[in-house]
Amino acid sequence: MATSLVAFQGERGSFSEEAAYKLLGRGIRVLPCETFTALFESVASGRARYCLVPIENTLAGSVYENFDLLLANNLHIVREVSLRIVHNLIALPGTARKDVRQVYSHPVALAQCGRFFAKNPKVKRITYYDTAGSVKMLAERQPPGAAAIASRIAAEVYHANILATHLEDHRENYTRFLLLTKTARVSPKANKVSIVFSTPNSPGALYKCLSVFALRDIDLTKMESRPLRGRPWEYFFYLDFVGNVKDDKCKKALAHLSEVTNFLRVLGCYESAKR
Amino acid sequence: MATSLVAFQGERGSFSEEAAYKLLGRGIRVLPCETFTALFESVASGRARYCLVPIENTLAGSVYENFDLLLANNLHIVREVSLRIVHNLIALPGTARKDVRQVYSHPVALAQCGRFFAKNPKVKRITYYDTAGSVKMLAERQPPGAAAIASRIAAEVYHANILATHLEDHRENYTRFLLLTKTARVSPKANKVSIVFSTPNSPGALYKCLSVFALRDIDLTKMESRPLRGRPWEYFFYLDFVGNVKDDKCKKALAHLSEVTNFLRVLGCYESAKR
Repeated sequence: MATSLVAFQGERGSFSEEAAYKLLGRGIRVLPCETFTALFESVASGRARYCLVPIENTLAGSVYENFDLLLANNLHIVREVSLRIVHNLIALPGTARKDVRQVYSHPVALAQCGRFFAKNPKVKRITYYDTAGSVKMLAERQPPGAAAIASRIAAEVYHANILATHLEDHRENYTRFLLLTKTARVSPKANKVSIVFSTPNSPGALYKCLSVFALRDIDLTKMESRPLRGRPWEYFFYLDFVGNVKDDKCKKALAHLSEVTNFLRVLGCYESAKR
Repeated sequence: MATSLVAFQGERGSFSEEAAYKLLGRGIRVLPCETFTALFESVASGRARYCLVPIENTLAGSVYENFDLLLANNLHIVREVSLRIVHNLIALPGTARKDVRQVYSHPVALAQCGRFFAKNPKVKRITYYDTAGSVKMLAERQPPGAAAIASRIAAEVYHANILATHLEDHRENYTRFLLLTKTARVSPKANKVSIVFSTPNSPGALYKCLSVFALRDIDLTKMESRPLRGRPWEYFFYLDFVGNVKDDKCKKALAHLSEVTNFLRVLGCYESAKR
């Protein structure tokens, strides 16, 4: 995997890029994409071998657009990584902490650093389209007295300095990412399965689906629902469970599930992220 | 309810205002609020008697922020209404359909009218912060050759004309709204219950919760999950089911559910929207 091209969404220096290095090491080549749609397309078209997709944050919840894109694209989940989101105060060389008068970042990052701004009431928050993009802007335009809030990788990419770290209010701030590629493969270490299904519109349908797992003592780790377009008030369900699709128990559970669903697709079987 | 003050999010003329009239008639007084947080606050503070909150759209999915606000605020769901989202092309008197060169609207509304723009390639899309707000802007600034995409109520409020209707690509585009107030009440016609709960972090916990309903043939209509802040990878579950909290079967189901959950709150019991 070392020299593969790995696509991510956002500017160079994003948290997605940090997660890619955590999962695959520093030897990879990276391809920034502007939107999540372009991110999935980069792999579907063969331009990149892998893409790393944020799927869930422990404060903000699921990245719902990416659940929809998992269904719309025929890519396979092959790895997972969980990254602790550490917000850093970043400025260009020559700007000291005491000089900082404005801080640029994405509105979600600014909102997650409320205590820092409460303690520094003279520092103005300025919303920007991207965390790493705000460091890039500092490097390009060099506004005086300006800093940004972004990942430590952003400081490295744009040759800037970290003036302070752990600006985030909540330490329990993690984002989970999925690594996708065109060809399904199941490692022997794989211990987690992601599926998507829809049920007949009848009472107890979802309960029947979950019984497939409960009756076999299979542990569910996450469930999500998304609307079924064109069928108002019906849903696709996304489920993660503990297991390996090559194990007998898991094979039987999926066969049983296919009896009680209208539609069923395995999105991937992969090694669960260390948490 | 006729002369009660009903708060909604957005500018005058929003789809929320249209939904309020559908549910409560034209006799109500309305209070526009800038954000969803301010919307909940308007009722919590006693400024408005009711607020009408969009909770789910059949194309875009749940309005997740409002699930979080239902939990954070101690308001009660007393009614529900489902509104078909019809996008209209709206311009000021004096601007004919053939004069339209730019169309302003919220990016979601513009995205939902893709076929209209494909058929009219010379018409430029311009994103604006709000659907009704774009009609308000036309009335204030009178830009030449401009139109907006918004609700029919927006045309009425800003004395503009509807040049074309049903611009939306998908006819099956509905938004479901909840009416909230400070005091819980259950009408005899109530046939739907909304609850929120969290489960112990043990295998099969969610299955046990759903069995409470399945064993009593109680039909679930919607399930949603949101992250439990400070407890990574744990969730609050939001559930809607058919029933009335004063019925014996429903009382027993809720008592049973409280045995297998850590936390349980009834958000409201109300008459289900006609669909």
